[in-house]
Amino acid sequence: MTGTLAAIGAGLAVIGAGIGIGNIGSKAMEAIARQPEAVGDIRSNMILMAALIEGAALIAIILAFFG
Amino acid sequence: MTGTLAAIGAGLAVIGAGIGIGNIGSKAMEAIARQPEAVGDIRSNMILMAALIEGAALIAIILAFFG
Amino acid sequence: MTGTLAAIGAGLAVIGAGIGIGNIGSKAMEAIARQPEAVGDIRSNMILMAALIEGAALIAIILAFFG
Amino acid sequence: MTGTLAAIGAGLAVIGAGIGIGNIGSKAMEAIARQPEAVGDIRSNMILMAALIEGAALIAIILAFFG
Amino acid sequence: MTGTLAAIGAGLAVIGAGIGIGNIGSKAMEAIARQPEAVGDIRSNMILMAALIEGAALIAIILAFFG
Amino acid sequence: MTGTLAAIGAGLAVIGAGIGIGNIGSKAMEAIARQPEAVGDIRSNMILMAALIEGAALIAIILAFFG
Amino acid sequence: MTGTLAAIGAGLAVIGAGIGIGNIGSKAMEAIARQPEAVGDIRSNMILMAALIEGAALIAIILAFFG
Amino acid sequence: MTGTLAAIGAGLAVIGAGIGIGNIGSKAMEAIARQPEAVGDIRSNMILMAALIEGAALIAIILAFFG
Amino acid sequence: MTGTLAAIGAGLAVIGAGIGIGNIGSKAMEAIARQPEAVGDIRSNMILMAALIEGAALIAIILAFFG
Amino acid sequence: MTGTLAAIGAGLAVIGAGIGIGNIGSKAMEAIARQPEAVGDIRSNMILMAALIEGAALIAIILAFFG
Amino acid sequence: MTGTLAAIGAGLAVIGAGIGIGNIGSKAMEAIARQPEAVGDIRSNMILMAALIEGAALIAIILAFFG
Amino acid sequence: MTGTLAAIGAGLAVIGAGIGIGNIGSKAMEAIARQPEAVGDIRSNMILMAALIEGAALIAIILAFFG
Amino acid sequence: MTGTLAAIGAGLAVIGAGIGIGNIGSKAMEAIARQPEAVGDIRSNMILMAALIEGAALIAIILAFFG
Amino acid sequence: MTGTLAAIGAGLAVIGAGIGIGNIGSKAMEAIARQPEAVGDIRSNMILMAALIEGAALIAIILAFFG
Repeated sequence: MTGTLAAIGAGLAVIGAGIGIGNIGSKAMEAIARQPEAVGDIRSNMILMAALIEGAALIAIILAFFG
Repeated sequence: MTGTLAAIGAGLAVIGAGIGIGNIGSKAMEAIARQPEAVGDIRSNMILMAALIEGAALIAIILAFFG
Repeated sequence: MTGTLAAIGAGLAVIGAGIGIGNIGSKAMEAIARQPEAVGDIRSNMILMAALIEGAALIAIILAFFG
Repeated sequence: MTGTLAAIGAGLAVIGAGIGIGNIGSKAMEAIARQPEAVGDIRSNMILMAALIEGAALIAIILAFFG
Repeated sequence: MTGTLAAIGAGLAVIGAGIGIGNIGSKAMEAIARQPEAVGDIRSNMILMAALIEGAALIAIILAFFG
Repeated sequence: MTGTLAAIGAGLAVIGAGIGIGNIGSKAMEAIARQPEAVGDIRSNMILMAALIEGAALIAIILAFFG
Repeated sequence: MTGTLAAIGAGLAVIGAGIGIGNIGSKAMEAIARQPEAVGDIRSNMILMAALIEGAALIAIILAFFG
Repeated sequence: MTGTLAAIGAGLAVIGAGIGIGNIGSKAMEAIARQPEAVGDIRSNMILMAALIEGAALIAIILAFFG
Repeated sequence: MTGTLAAIGAGLAVIGAGIGIGNIGSKAMEAIARQPEAVGDIRSNMILMAALIEGAALIAIILAFFG
Repeated sequence: MTGTLAAIGAGLAVIGAGIGIGNIGSKAMEAIARQPEAVGDIRSNMILMAALIEGAALIAIILAFFG
Repeated sequence: MTGTLAAIGAGLAVIGAGIGIGNIGSKAMEAIARQPEAVGDIRSNMILMAALIEGAALIAIILAFFG
Repeated sequence: MTGTLAAIGAGLAVIGAGIGIGNIGSKAMEAIARQPEAVGDIRSNMILMAALIEGAALIAIILAFFG
Repeated sequence: MTGTLAAIGAGLAVIGAGIGIGNIGSKAMEAIARQPEAVGDIRSNMILMAALIEGAALIAIILAFFG
Repeated sequence: MTGTLAAIGAGLAVIGAGIGIGNIGSKAMEAIARQPEAVGDIRSNMILMAALIEGAALIAIILAFFG
């Protein structure tokens, strides 16, 4: 019975990552189209924020199965 | 009983991937239509962000069935 | 009891694919109407992103029934 | 007990198809009204994306009842 | 016990059809009001997309009761 | 126990019909107010789409109680 | 046990009618305010669409209690 | 056990009435503010549509408790 | 066990009243601010519509506890 | 067991009051900022509508605990 | 078992208060920024409406634990 | 069993506080950016409204665990 | 059984904090971009409001596990 | 049974982090595109707010598995 509810928890974590990274990424696309010369600043901040969410999601997924 | 709840977890993970990649991809379409010459920057950042979500989704799906 | 919850998981996966591919596709229609000459770039990126979601959805559906 | 939960799964799959194809189709109507001469490009891309969703939905429905 | 859960599945399928066909149809009304002379193109594409959703919904309903 | 869950299924089907027909009908009102001389085209397409949804809803309701 | 779940089904049907007729009616108010001389066309189409939803809702309610 | 689930069904019916009549009524306020001289047409159509929803809601409530 | 589920039904009825009357009332505020001299028409129609919802809500609450 | 489900019913009633009064109150703020000299009319109608919702909410809460 | 469901009821009441007071308060901020000289009228009406919601929420919370 | 459902109640209360205070705070940011010289009025009203929500939330949390 | 429901309560509290602080923070970004010279006022008020939500969230999380 | 519900709690916490950090990050992208020279202020405030949410999420995840 361990693995099954953990699968739902992992699925919820991926939904969280999808909402967060998708939101950041979609606005970054828009920002690059509006200000193509600021692509460096946008890219570094985009990766920084996405990494925070990705990190939390991966910690939750790993702990769900092996915690 | 293993496989069945895992299927729901995998379904939730695909919803997460759909929200995230769909959001990024849809704004990228808009960005290309607005700034066709920035297609290189948009494409590389789009794939980078989509890969982060796809990765988390696939890890969750694989672990749900074989974790 | 295997097949039944798997059916719900597959249904959720199709909802995810519908949200994601539908979102990308709908904005691609808009983008083509706005910038008809960029149809090549839009089409290739659209298919690339849709393939990522379709792939995850099909993996989840197949594993749900035969995993 | 097989058929009943499968019916719910199939219902969810149709919701997914409805969200996705409905979204693509509605924007395609708008795009044709805005750019009537691009109807060929819009139509071919619209059918391509709708086919991806329809395919996933039908696979899920068929497998739900006979998988 | 067969018929009852199947009724819920059929209800969900009708919700899917309602979202999808309703969305396409409502935008088609708008498109005809904006571009009355493109009514042929709009009508044929509208019926094509609606048929895809209607087909999936009817298959799901029929299989839910007699599958 | 037959009739009771069937009632819920029928209720869901009416929600689907309400979303779909309501959406089409409301945009048709708007379209007539914007383009009063296109009332014939709008009316015929409106009824065509509404009939598709109404048909699916009635089939689901009838099958839910007598299927 | 008959009447009670049927009450919930009837409640859902009223929600469906409320969404649908409310949506059509509210846009009709707007349309009359924008185009007061088209009140005949708006009224006849409004009643036609509302009747489709009202019919489905009443059939579902009646069958839920006496089906 | 009769009255209790019936209370929930009646509550759902009131939600439906609230969504529908509230939507129609709120747009009617707007319409009167925009076109004060069309208050007769707006009022008669507003009452007609609200009566359809109110009727369905009251039938559902009465049948839920005494059906 | 009578009173408790009835409390939930009454709570749902108040949510319905809150959505409906709140929606009508909020648009009436806006309408008065836009057209202060039409305050009589707005007020009478506002009370008429609010009374329809309030009546349904009170009937549902009273019947839930004493029906 | 009386008090506990009643607490949930009361909580739902407060959500209804919050949606309704909050909606009316927020638009009244906007209306006062737009038309400061109509503050008398706005205030009297605002209190009238809020009282209708507050009354229904309090009746539901009181009956939930002591009905 | 008393305190626990009461905690959920109290949580729902706080959600109601948060939606209502938050909505009123946020629009009041906007109104002050738009019409700084009407701050007296805005403040008094804001507190009046917030008090109605706060009162209902506190009554529900107190009764949930000690009713 | 005391502490666990209380934890869910407290979580719901924090969601309520987050919706309410977040809404007020976000509009206050906007208001300060639009009218920097009205920062005193905005700040005092912002804290007043936030305190009402915070108070209700803390009362609910404390009572949930120790009531 | 203590820790597990507490985990869900803590998860809900984090959702509340995410909604609230995310809302405040996102509007603060916008406000700084619009009025860069008001960054001091925006920052101090932003931290003040975020602290109110963070405090409530941490109290709820700590009490959920050790209360 | 410890780990499994904790996994769901952790998943909810990641959803909270995704909503919050995603919201802040997406608006920061927009803000940089609008005011590229304010990138320092935006970055420092963005990280400050994101850290508050990340902290609460990580505390909740760690306590869920090891609390």
